[in-house]
Amino acid sequence: MISMESDSSRRAVNLADKLSQSDDHWSPRTVAQFNGHDVMVAKVKGEFVWHHHSDTDDLFLVLSGRITIRLRDGDVEMGPGELFVVPVGVEHQPFAANEAEVLLIEPTGTPNTGDEITAARRIVI
Amino acid sequence: MISMESDSSRRAVNLADKLSQSDDHWSPRTVAQFNGHDVMVAKVKGEFVWHHHSDTDDLFLVLSGRITIRLRDGDVEMGPGELFVVPVGVEHQPFAANEAEVLLIEPTGTPNTGDEITAARRIVI
Repeated sequence: MISMESDSSRRAVNLADKLSQSDDHWSPRTVAQFNGHDVMVAKVKGEFVWHHHSDTDDLFLVLSGRITIRLRDGDVEMGPGELFVVPVGVEHQPFAANEAEVLLIEPTGTPNTGDEITAARRIVI
Repeated sequence: MISMESDSSRRAVNLADKLSQSDDHWSPRTVAQFNGHDVMVAKVKGEFVWHHHSDTDDLFLVLSGRITIRLRDGDVEMGPGELFVVPVGVEHQPFAANEAEVLLIEPTGTPNTGDEITAARRIVI
């Protein structure tokens, strides 16, 4: 067993506080790290690009508002306190009609558009 | 890219619904899987055993109520929407004066007491 490195490492992260620090959409901020993954929060609004991740699942937990995870074979509607894991390799397009706040977990260093943008239409992010 | 296996895999998990299915304390229920990890929810009350995990970090997110993660060098107090990752190897004892609800993420198959119970006093769980 080891000791915690510093006093600051002993504080919980308040997700609402972290979210209040930026108004940007689709710009995840890493708030903690866990087993080689980044735990991130983001404000989202509008539609993100269609993409998939070739080597990781993609975890979404809605903190406020509502989002839709569009899949090629249907939509997943999500509200506060709802969680969905997009399995590795599955194309998806996150969408929020109104601003929403989400917690995301992905391996550290994963581009948020995945390894490959699979939409015919690309957007600049 | 691959398709989702079944229609049921396209639904978000409502964490409150899952929590409502059991009144047991310290008995995590797996609600999703993510990159070899179990995403779990649990009701907690009272104190758990001192323990550490030799090969994994331990993620706590409070969904309702308040908990304390006791560490050998101090306590981490947590309320709703607060997240804390106990680093690999660090001894800790979760405690809740009143019932609280938490989301936990650990590698699939991790015993919740860790590999080694480090308290002088063991409890049967």
